[in-house]
Amino acid sequence: MPLITLMTDFGIKDGNVGVMKGVIWGICPEAHIADISHMIGAQNLPEAALVLARSAPYFPRGTIHVAVVDPGVGTARRPMAAQIGDWSYVGPDNGLITLLLQRGRAENWHSEFFVLDKPEFWRADVSHVFHGRDIFAPVAAHLARGTALSALGTPFADPVRLDLAKPVRRGRVWQGEVIHVDHFGNLASNIREENLGEALGQRDQIGVRLGGAQINGLVNTFGERTPGEVVALLGSTGNLIVSVVNGSAASVLGVGVGAGVEVTLPSRALGGAPAADPHG
Amino acid sequence: MPLITLMTDFGIKDGNVGVMKGVIWGICPEAHIADISHMIGAQNLPEAALVLARSAPYFPRGTIHVAVVDPGVGTARRPMAAQIGDWSYVGPDNGLITLLLQRGRAENWHSEFFVLDKPEFWRADVSHVFHGRDIFAPVAAHLARGTALSALGTPFADPVRLDLAKPVRRGRVWQGEVIHVDHFGNLASNIREENLGEALGQRDQIGVRLGGAQINGLVNTFGERTPGEVVALLGSTGNLIVSVVNGSAASVLGVGVGAGVEVTLPSRALGGAPAADPHG
Amino acid sequence: MPLITLMTDFGIKDGNVGVMKGVIWGICPEAHIADISHMIGAQNLPEAALVLARSAPYFPRGTIHVAVVDPGVGTARRPMAAQIGDWSYVGPDNGLITLLLQRGRAENWHSEFFVLDKPEFWRADVSHVFHGRDIFAPVAAHLARGTALSALGTPFADPVRLDLAKPVRRGRVWQGEVIHVDHFGNLASNIREENLGEALGQRDQIGVRLGGAQINGLVNTFGERTPGEVVALLGSTGNLIVSVVNGSAASVLGVGVGAGVEVTLPSRALGGAPAADPHG
Repeated sequence: MPLITLMTDFGIKDGNVGVMKGVIWGICPEAHIADISHMIGAQNLPEAALVLARSAPYFPRGTIHVAVVDPGVGTARRPMAAQIGDWSYVGPDNGLITLLLQRGRAENWHSEFFVLDKPEFWRADVSHVFHGRDIFAPVAAHLARGTALSALGTPFADPVRLDLAKPVRRGRVWQGEVIHVDHFGNLASNIREENLGEALGQRDQIGVRLGGAQINGLVNTFGERTPGEVVALLGSTGNLIVSVVNGSAASVLGVGVGAGVEVTLPSRALGGAPAADPHG
Repeated sequence: MPLITLMTDFGIKDGNVGVMKGVIWGICPEAHIADISHMIGAQNLPEAALVLARSAPYFPRGTIHVAVVDPGVGTARRPMAAQIGDWSYVGPDNGLITLLLQRGRAENWHSEFFVLDKPEFWRADVSHVFHGRDIFAPVAAHLARGTALSALGTPFADPVRLDLAKPVRRGRVWQGEVIHVDHFGNLASNIREENLGEALGQRDQIGVRLGGAQINGLVNTFGERTPGEVVALLGSTGNLIVSVVNGSAASVLGVGVGAGVEVTLPSRALGGAPAADPHG
Repeated sequence: MPLITLMTDFGIKDGNVGVMKGVIWGICPEAHIADISHMIGAQNLPEAALVLARSAPYFPRGTIHVAVVDPGVGTARRPMAAQIGDWSYVGPDNGLITLLLQRGRAENWHSEFFVLDKPEFWRADVSHVFHGRDIFAPVAAHLARGTALSALGTPFADPVRLDLAKPVRRGRVWQGEVIHVDHFGNLASNIREENLGEALGQRDQIGVRLGGAQINGLVNTFGERTPGEVVALLGSTGNLIVSVVNGSAASVLGVGVGAGVEVTLPSRALGGAPAADPHG
């Protein structure tokens, strides 16, 4: 059963996502197609890279992920397909896969990249503005039918990567920033579970500062506190999150993507020598 | 062909619904999955219960309904699965199925409830904040593949029920409230077709009062009146609805969920003795 | 593999689209169902006709398109099914297929129309307000299972057509209007590729005026200009579009559907005799 996912910034009112499904089913009518999101901010590549990396690995081996957030459509940016770990990617070569590749490096996934340069696998008329319909959907459908990735294009080695902000450690303090505001108004930072390390054994000693709020201790889940309270916790994908119980942290704190986040580790977790190793 | 539906308050931009589909397909790749709604108000259990009860019974026998509106995720609230009439439910035990059970009681459906306490049917790592992905999606997929409900958990008898407002009758008058505002701004009340009984034979004699508007007589459908007119009618699921033809009653009347609704029955319908029987 | 699409103005929060899928799967559980759009403006038939005509032809032969934007539901307007080219249509006879038929005439598609008057293919209880659930979904599912169109109703010849504004040519100038604002704020006009004809050979000589902006020359794609610049181009379905690169033309120019658009052709393209043929 071939599985294909779609992620775009097309929104849901104009029918363009439906059109991509029509093109896919014209080539591979048995494909099951799931929507990841079509509400990525317009041309927002960092957000697209984040949502793709958070979602793609939960699909079974062999799933084909088509992502179209494509400000450079119709210009020299390359159309591409890739094998990344157990999954395929089809879309523009513009950094969309940056975070997926970063995870792949950490987990030793195998990756291969191909420039899509075989028009026989595309729609006959390729518009300048809708490669999702004319190149990416048909290529994904051919992959789903069993065409080898290597038949669809020419190998290349250097996919574009976004230069995304990484958290920095100074002594006992991690400095990061908000990288995503979700539907509930939860604020996800780029400080991750692995950055906190052994400090997680004393999570009530961890301090978090964001948008004027000072939060003492991490909780495990929202229900440990009362509605309206500002809490910090590890989200379901391992990022440090600031939330308001049954409310919107983005509204209550008045901050969004890019806001600074500071996490102060307990002194014991550092073995008493934080100042000697400021870069952790 | 196993059929699964998903209903959540997750919204549609963050990819979390897609992740649940990925987990389901990893276990049961042939499942057809339909979205009921992902725009339930955040943590709004009464709305979730209403939309589930209005939607679930239109699916064929054997459909598995997964609903995740889950303010208590990660706390002591029980994860559950149930047989309710011809359908299965998988989700939190927090009252989401209140109205479905109420309908089941009226129509003599068979029901059984199980606490999900067999982690071998869950994802290996269960987060504190996303049981939709880690418990409910995999359990639904195992059900879809044919695992018996009784293998997934331990029977229990007392699922949580919400305490939802019921309409009250005083003489010729039913007093209820608005329980749902739909996409068009139609105002659905908790006064139902069965409350009106024989009065429906004289529907032009029924009076409805809501948000300052006095409506004389029910119509059968919007097209009987001119655009902009305020009308009352029975909606497609049997609730009394107040609408503005080709417009939004919520905007025009300036009211929402919780607003009082009064329905005055024609005197003949009561056999001339309404005052003697104030509780109908 | 039967394919069905759904297009409505129902929105995505109330569960009504899910209900239609449930009804379809109760009759034809193997159907693959794609959403075209459920965010058509309430009762907005011109928009519905446009989105349907832009989307339907990209689906494979035999796809059944169900469209429910239905201000006349429950009145004398006819429920219908049709063969239009390679596809079927099921929905109200209210002009929704106007632009699809217009394209069919240009491309010599075969068309046949049937009034749905065989209740044995409907749900047993037909509400006055939700024919999408009670008539159109079950009829589409029966079609998907192989019932002939001619068994579902009685032939008729005169489907309702909307009276939509057409562009007018005066000398070197085409006067049209904005007919759609998409998710990105791009403004699509009713002036089409075929109206521009040979002038497209000199696209840098074409002038476009809209909402106070004067644009000199068409581009092929957004990436040819810098972010924030107002550009004109042919969209992926052949309509002349005005856009702001990486921005919203609707916001920047402050206009929407109905705004006038003027396209001035280069003088050479008219062979020197534009004034002699003011209606092109």
